[in-house]
Amino acid sequence: MGRRKNKIKLGAFLLFTGHHVAAWRHPQASVGTDFENYFELAKLAEAAKFDAIFFADGVAARLKDVEAASRKAHSGVYPFEPITLLSALSSVTRNIGLIATASTSFSDPYNLARQFGSLDRLSGGRAGWNLVTSSDQEAAYNFGHETRILHADRYERAEEFADVVLGLWDSWDDDAFIRDQAGGRYFDPEKLHRLNHKGRHFKVRGPLNIPRSPQGRPVLVQAGASGPGKELAARTAEAIFAAHITLEEAKAFYADVKGKLGAYGRSPDDLKILPGIFPVVGRSETEAQEKFEALQELIQPQVGLNLLSQLSGVDLSSYPLDGPIPSDLPVTNAGKSRQELVLDLARRENLTIRQLYLRTAGARGHWQVVGTPSQIADVMEERFENYGADGFNIMAPIMPGGLVDFIELVVPELRRRGLFRTEYEGTTLRENLGLKRPVNRFAAGTAAAAE
Amino acid sequence: MGRRKNKIKLGAFLLFTGHHVAAWRHPQASVGTDFENYFELAKLAEAAKFDAIFFADGVAARLKDVEAASRKAHSGVYPFEPITLLSALSSVTRNIGLIATASTSFSDPYNLARQFGSLDRLSGGRAGWNLVTSSDQEAAYNFGHETRILHADRYERAEEFADVVLGLWDSWDDDAFIRDQAGGRYFDPEKLHRLNHKGRHFKVRGPLNIPRSPQGRPVLVQAGASGPGKELAARTAEAIFAAHITLEEAKAFYADVKGKLGAYGRSPDDLKILPGIFPVVGRSETEAQEKFEALQELIQPQVGLNLLSQLSGVDLSSYPLDGPIPSDLPVTNAGKSRQELVLDLARRENLTIRQLYLRTAGARGHWQVVGTPSQIADVMEERFENYGADGFNIMAPIMPGGLVDFIELVVPELRRRGLFRTEYEGTTLRENLGLKRPVNRFAAGTAAAAE
Ligand SMILES: Cc1cc2nc3c(=O)[nH]c(=O)nc-3n(C[C@H](O)[C@H](O)[C@H](O)COP(=O)(O)O)c2cc1C
Ligand SMILES: Cc1cc2nc3c(=O)[nH]c(=O)nc-3n(C[C@H](O)[C@H](O)[C@H](O)COP(=O)(O)O)c2cc1C
Repeated sequence: MGRRKNKIKLGAFLLFTGHHVAAWRHPQASVGTDFENYFELAKLAEAAKFDAIFFADGVAARLKDVEAASRKAHSGVYPFEPITLLSALSSVTRNIGLIATASTSFSDPYNLARQFGSLDRLSGGRAGWNLVTSSDQEAAYNFGHETRILHADRYERAEEFADVVLGLWDSWDDDAFIRDQAGGRYFDPEKLHRLNHKGRHFKVRGPLNIPRSPQGRPVLVQAGASGPGKELAARTAEAIFAAHITLEEAKAFYADVKGKLGAYGRSPDDLKILPGIFPVVGRSETEAQEKFEALQELIQPQVGLNLLSQLSGVDLSSYPLDGPIPSDLPVTNAGKSRQELVLDLARRENLTIRQLYLRTAGARGHWQVVGTPSQIADVMEERFENYGADGFNIMAPIMPGGLVDFIELVVPELRRRGLFRTEYEGTTLRENLGLKRPVNRFAAGTAAAAE
Repeated sequence: MGRRKNKIKLGAFLLFTGHHVAAWRHPQASVGTDFENYFELAKLAEAAKFDAIFFADGVAARLKDVEAASRKAHSGVYPFEPITLLSALSSVTRNIGLIATASTSFSDPYNLARQFGSLDRLSGGRAGWNLVTSSDQEAAYNFGHETRILHADRYERAEEFADVVLGLWDSWDDDAFIRDQAGGRYFDPEKLHRLNHKGRHFKVRGPLNIPRSPQGRPVLVQAGASGPGKELAARTAEAIFAAHITLEEAKAFYADVKGKLGAYGRSPDDLKILPGIFPVVGRSETEAQEKFEALQELIQPQVGLNLLSQLSGVDLSSYPLDGPIPSDLPVTNAGKSRQELVLDLARRENLTIRQLYLRTAGARGHWQVVGTPSQIADVMEERFENYGADGFNIMAPIMPGGLVDFIELVVPELRRRGLFRTEYEGTTLRENLGLKRPVNRFAAGTAAAAE
């Protein structure tokens, strides 16, 4: 029980109209896509003392199969772009962290550093950047590319991108802007630092034309799980959104990433690991199961098949839905191991095509728990106590209802167990996550500046 | 009096801590740079029924002369980045337009189209984009360039950039997202339009992954005054921020730009011309003059000389401040005609170096009017009635005080004359500016789609 004093961290992964692929069709889904709908979710999460709200992002609609895409809410067409959305939320919230996703492959480090720095200032120190490299081929087509960008190239650029952004965030000392009206000095030139970065992908002189932010810099979050993704996270990230399903996988990932920190001069506490969880909460097991079934029934075959083909890499649309998985499927190159995993499951359990997509489509590959508040608290506690997680990213199946369920039913149970806060510890996202405020590498008196 | 029914439009050009170069040193300047300070200004402008608030922007600190830069508030280091700032303001304002500057030279059309589209949605149709091409050399160094980008190259890219952004804003019909829960159709594939743009600077497939915005698209604003700048504005802009000083110059510019619209199939009403005005308002002429002098006295010689060298192209710092302009100045290449204008003024009026910078530094080259409310209303009315302006961009010398002065003293006078609204005409920026809502070029039934 040694971890109790480090209470679990909670993020609310907000996605309209919920994380279940068919949530938007449910009579209780809020299909409105106004700012007010998002504001309501942010207020719910803040009242429950979540550490942060989080928005995923991509820079393309996913329309390879337009017919299937047009039958779901999750086709990559977001009602709002996350940096603008979180900025709008910053002025009507007080405590909750604001984490937006932005891609290193399709944005520019100067503009990105400045916008996240600005969000951190607007919110009084509550901003976070979820760094992604965007595997999406369709995104590349919106940014001048003819083909998908290779994984290794994406991560090479991401490493340099992160360095530039981190460097720009140290352009000014915390106290550079003295605004001495009588003496006529607005800033102290000694406290200004040019980056003068010259690398393979970027040449950036600096300084960033915005003062240092209240948290020193926004919290850097990562969500990549590949080898290069884990290295980048170990070197630069302060939180990771993970997507492991079993406790064993989660523990292995946790130990692996935490073990890498030492090599970068960092300690295990400098990076929080927050796996996603897709909780379907009922007052009884039956109620939970019924809630889940009500969503499952709304999955349209086109949508299920489409998700299945994305996960398994094979197109099953020409086979009978209620028949078995054909045994002579062509093996594709892309995602071979994932394909095997999915098809193995089907064969092991003798599933029809429909049963298989029902098993995988709902939570879209995330850790799914259907149960009572105490069952859900049990698995969260187990994962936390066994060093599989420092906290969780809550992926409510349907919004706002599923988030309300979690807040009203599971959060009180976590509090009874002493696992979750009743009041914010600090005013910044860093303070609530238990992360250090970074020292400016260039400031006089720091080790880095003395080099 | 024929123009009375088309009331004048007013923008509030917000700049901390005011447009006078020394405003930040004034005891009444709000030197705070918190969001609250900006929120206060936005509320003032909205209560006064201004059409819009406007933020300038650049993507570099202007630090060629660090010593001089450190002595002013206007060194290009902004407390906030404008798109995030206006997003934060969108959720705490209701009616006022929100115009942010963004550069075509240092941003990407897909990201820009998406962020402005998102701001338009967040604000219920109040967004505007001030398209600039950024002449600033220091900005180029932050984006991989070794040298300044040539004027012609900047405008070539800007033309294509504007086309891509406008095209992306038509990616979806207004009613594309049907969200038919029972029928299982989230969007209508017939109402989706890919751009498939392939040009010299950009390859962008589209669609934009955000629905069409409430105004059809954000209002496009321009501020370039060169030949290519005026052509781009005549083709694409819906408002122009101009910077002419005399009535004659203003009328000539107005006639010139409005005359170009026909060639692009547009009518004079499709583009509003809004010159900047720097008003120093006093209840009496003496009070106005005293207010102005109180600011002028705060200009530090280094700052005055620095601005003078930026305007005239010559460095006068080695000559006695209270002596004449030397007659044997080296003629530089850059900005030759502007240099001659400034030096001619000095010679004609026999000004010392100090007198010359005092004449030009305060309003930084903008149209400056020091006087009573009725004197200021007179010159605005004159410029409006004589087709030199459709409205004005108010550049308060000091904030919030100078904006309060204008609102409390000049706005009532404009209303007495029937020149300015007492209530917003509509809910969108377009409606208030008297601009048409653009039809989606690709939508079925439009002329463009039928081609
Ligand atoms: C919880 C979670 C959220 C993610 N959010 C995004 C996202 O919003 N946008 C995106 O492009 N990728 C997202 N990803 C994908 C990864 O960040 C990463 O880009 C992808 O996994 C490829 O990197 P890898 O090969 O290192 O895993 C997310 C992943 C996880 C686990
Ligand atoms: C009122 C006004 C505001 C302007 N704001 C900006 C600005 O915020 N950022 C910028 O880079 N240029 C700004 N400019 C400059 C022009 O937009 C333009 O980039 C510059 O004049 C060069 O273009 P040109 O050669 O066509 O005049 C502004 C100009 C005016 C008149």
